[in-house]
Amino acid sequence: MADTKINSNEDSNQLVQKIVSLCKRRGFVFQSSEIYGGLKSCYDYGPLGVELKRNIAQAWWDSMVYEREDVVGLDASIMMHPKVWETSGHLAGFSDPLVDCLNCKERFRADKATKVDVGTTVEFYQGGKSSGKKLTGVCDRGYVCPQCGSTLLSKERSFNLMFRAGFGPIDYIGQIVEDIEKKVASIKDGGSFPDSKTLRDSIESVINKNAVFLRPETAQAMFVQFLNVVQSTSMHIPFGIAQCGKSFRNEIVTEHFIFRSCEFEQMELEYFVEPGTQAQYLDYWKNTRIEWYRKLANKPDNFRLRRHDKDELAHYSDDCYDIEYLYPWGWDELEGIASRTDYDLSKHSKASNTKLSYFDLQKQDPNTGKQGYRYIPYVIEPSAGLTRSLLCFLLDAYTEEVGVDANGNEKTRVLLKLSPKLAPIKVAVFPLVKKDGLPERARKIAAALRKRRINVVCDDNQSIGKRYAKHDEIGTPYCITVDNQSLEDSSVTVRDRDTAGQVRLSEQEAIEHVLKGLGLELI
Amino acid sequence: MADTKINSNEDSNQLVQKIVSLCKRRGFVFQSSEIYGGLKSCYDYGPLGVELKRNIAQAWWDSMVYEREDVVGLDASIMMHPKVWETSGHLAGFSDPLVDCLNCKERFRADKATKVDVGTTVEFYQGGKSSGKKLTGVCDRGYVCPQCGSTLLSKERSFNLMFRAGFGPIDYIGQIVEDIEKKVASIKDGGSFPDSKTLRDSIESVINKNAVFLRPETAQAMFVQFLNVVQSTSMHIPFGIAQCGKSFRNEIVTEHFIFRSCEFEQMELEYFVEPGTQAQYLDYWKNTRIEWYRKLANKPDNFRLRRHDKDELAHYSDDCYDIEYLYPWGWDELEGIASRTDYDLSKHSKASNTKLSYFDLQKQDPNTGKQGYRYIPYVIEPSAGLTRSLLCFLLDAYTEEVGVDANGNEKTRVLLKLSPKLAPIKVAVFPLVKKDGLPERARKIAAALRKRRINVVCDDNQSIGKRYAKHDEIGTPYCITVDNQSLEDSSVTVRDRDTAGQVRLSEQEAIEHVLKGLGLELI
Repeated sequence: MADTKINSNEDSNQLVQKIVSLCKRRGFVFQSSEIYGGLKSCYDYGPLGVELKRNIAQAWWDSMVYEREDVVGLDASIMMHPKVWETSGHLAGFSDPLVDCLNCKERFRADKATKVDVGTTVEFYQGGKSSGKKLTGVCDRGYVCPQCGSTLLSKERSFNLMFRAGFGPIDYIGQIVEDIEKKVASIKDGGSFPDSKTLRDSIESVINKNAVFLRPETAQAMFVQFLNVVQSTSMHIPFGIAQCGKSFRNEIVTEHFIFRSCEFEQMELEYFVEPGTQAQYLDYWKNTRIEWYRKLANKPDNFRLRRHDKDELAHYSDDCYDIEYLYPWGWDELEGIASRTDYDLSKHSKASNTKLSYFDLQKQDPNTGKQGYRYIPYVIEPSAGLTRSLLCFLLDAYTEEVGVDANGNEKTRVLLKLSPKLAPIKVAVFPLVKKDGLPERARKIAAALRKRRINVVCDDNQSIGKRYAKHDEIGTPYCITVDNQSLEDSSVTVRDRDTAGQVRLSEQEAIEHVLKGLGLELI
Repeated sequence: MADTKINSNEDSNQLVQKIVSLCKRRGFVFQSSEIYGGLKSCYDYGPLGVELKRNIAQAWWDSMVYEREDVVGLDASIMMHPKVWETSGHLAGFSDPLVDCLNCKERFRADKATKVDVGTTVEFYQGGKSSGKKLTGVCDRGYVCPQCGSTLLSKERSFNLMFRAGFGPIDYIGQIVEDIEKKVASIKDGGSFPDSKTLRDSIESVINKNAVFLRPETAQAMFVQFLNVVQSTSMHIPFGIAQCGKSFRNEIVTEHFIFRSCEFEQMELEYFVEPGTQAQYLDYWKNTRIEWYRKLANKPDNFRLRRHDKDELAHYSDDCYDIEYLYPWGWDELEGIASRTDYDLSKHSKASNTKLSYFDLQKQDPNTGKQGYRYIPYVIEPSAGLTRSLLCFLLDAYTEEVGVDANGNEKTRVLLKLSPKLAPIKVAVFPLVKKDGLPERARKIAAALRKRRINVVCDDNQSIGKRYAKHDEIGTPYCITVDNQSLEDSSVTVRDRDTAGQVRLSEQEAIEHVLKGLGLELI
């Protein structure tokens, strides 16, 4: 096709809309509970979306666990003991008034904000990044966002980002009712009813006593299970624990389709190292991780590393990089690679009264000079979003090619240039028509490919042109077509998604050609 | 080894204890948040457990999705619109007093129970199954269990099996406090404070208005997304939607390690068929599913089908089978295969005002005789527990062999005879010693095997005997050892887990031998 136009950024909203529409039409992503009007920011992954998501997760797991000797996996429960969140700091402020910055998305306690006199005009950057546009605002609250200095703030509200649920067969509402009835009875006896704050605290305390929280990150389980993993596997430092799974955050601001949602999936690694070596491993992991994305992408330059400024760092972190992607709305976060020091293991050691440390018999203790060195490991954490990277790979793959059809009319070909490793369907096999034994031959080829444990479909719906167009649009790298000539000489055509070019090969050659293109050639 | 003794059932508790201990020691299953005393019935899957779980899920997905043309996948969010649960019936009775039968585990509304005069002596079967022991009890409640007639009942408590969490940045406790304060203020104005029931209902209604529920089953998403799937895939009936994912039930009774827990994983298929053909497909699926277990098991006779009695059926079901496993505590549930009629799609159609129906252009409408037949499909649902089958496969694989060591002393070899498809590690490669280039040779073999996308480890910890014992105990089918002779003639030994026998082969032969044994020989 001549005159190829790759999608430009000029109409970025339109691009997101096109992806959303393709996702629904082709079965990648549906809105959750759509027939009931949907549930805010919750999404279901359809027949193709579930395969794409599985493939991204598998590519991550391959590179993090199977292809390495120094990383093992974990799959922890979503519900964990509330003490975990108390210790990690996630629970703090459950009944504190919190404010969200509508500019940089920071959520902060109003009483910890940067104080500024009411009426003062302040300057800040759009999105909180020095690369953004400069904005001005008048402080009407007595404080501004402690992160970006913005005056664009949500109301003060009492809430936490964690979802809280009652746990166990406890009738906590019954307990609240009883409690209130006692307090009301005491009024009749001349006592006074508690003020709002006291009443609220007593209700919170009944609820919290029986509460469990949905994890807001998968990371804490790797810290809490550090000892069990070391003891059961005899791993030596440096080593890592990898986990892929769902996390939940009661976000105020959900945005950009699946970019920020309340229910999402993470792929996190906690890599444990000797104190003093963290800078070297941070360097290693930031490079390893961005390479991973770039190798799977069509436009590697749309991924970049951004080092956090000193004042941007979380209090427990001594250095941090973000991997950013150039979304239609600009550069934004995709993965964080943080050097977390020994903050987490130290806190959990203390709170649980357990020694979450590591003993290296081969090393001398640098403090005493004696053989054998016990220390609390430092941690490098590459923390990626699975559902977020799915969006990136869709954006990266979406391509429109304007060409000319057989009659000379302009025609747009939409294709997803997904890496073969990520494509939901690897090969589609078509009988040209539904007769003359062609469907049976097609099924035989599909069965042979299926033995290599790849997702293959046989498709005999609609015209051959429509089938090619469909498989372009869902990113199927290869289509094999069985036609009447196949009956004579056992040859088939193999069509390449990206070039739309076709070659005629024997069945066996076609299978080998396709496996090679998928990177599944044999050892 | 002579005198092989397979674990008997005589000490069933001991067997479960052995499995629990092996699971912790070797890194299959840890208690969640163990350093904080654990969280009731929540478990984390360790480095080996996560692989075993992934492999079971993959074997299911392979057989349900990849190897079939009539089933597609789905991965829906855990949080769904509350209307889904209202329609499915899961929400009913949130503020009703519920009772659990401690005998058959039925949870029922006290007001719907079978009425019996207080003081009457009644008979019922242990476990609620007619195969159980006959027990007698005196009714002290005015009712007995409507399912099994037992008098062994929990207290009446107000709760639902679903976990409920506040959704969105709503300060619902603030709303409750305000509401109560208004009611208290009205007392001062001479009004009366509401009674317990009214107060409770008003609190419930504030909470429910802002609530979201964790799904207690994955099934409902397949019904709710039925139309989206049909429209995006053009699937023709009969076809199915498969899903694997977490579900949550606030169980009163959690038991038997990971058998019944509050957070668990399901593998469910909803298979949509034409009304009138459900009996034939129920028959097909019950056979297909039990075959799946039996093929992966060592003792296929420990799996059986049990048809539900008519009075055991849920009200929406016209027939149902359980696949039961012979656990150490007796036959108990593993999977249910239910014929659910058109109950779910009909209910959701009505509640959402959406036509969840299917139009078959090729068929005549049996009512009108006209071409084209629109109907609400009937559903066959094979619903399996992933975490529960993990327990079954561990129990099935656990084997103790009593033999004699080199010095003539009795010695017990513990091994997990897991199917190669399920084994967490497929091959372990050992350098006999950590020198003379043996580790490098071992790594090269491991790398060659890893290209086939299987989980391979190199292990040079401890003595060779201890390494064999470890890999027996974690179910690794093959161990390849590189020794000094390997340096001379490039040969290695391959040890078979089940026989403990060794053969010496060339490196290339060893790789082929192992791949063949794993069922990964090439097409």
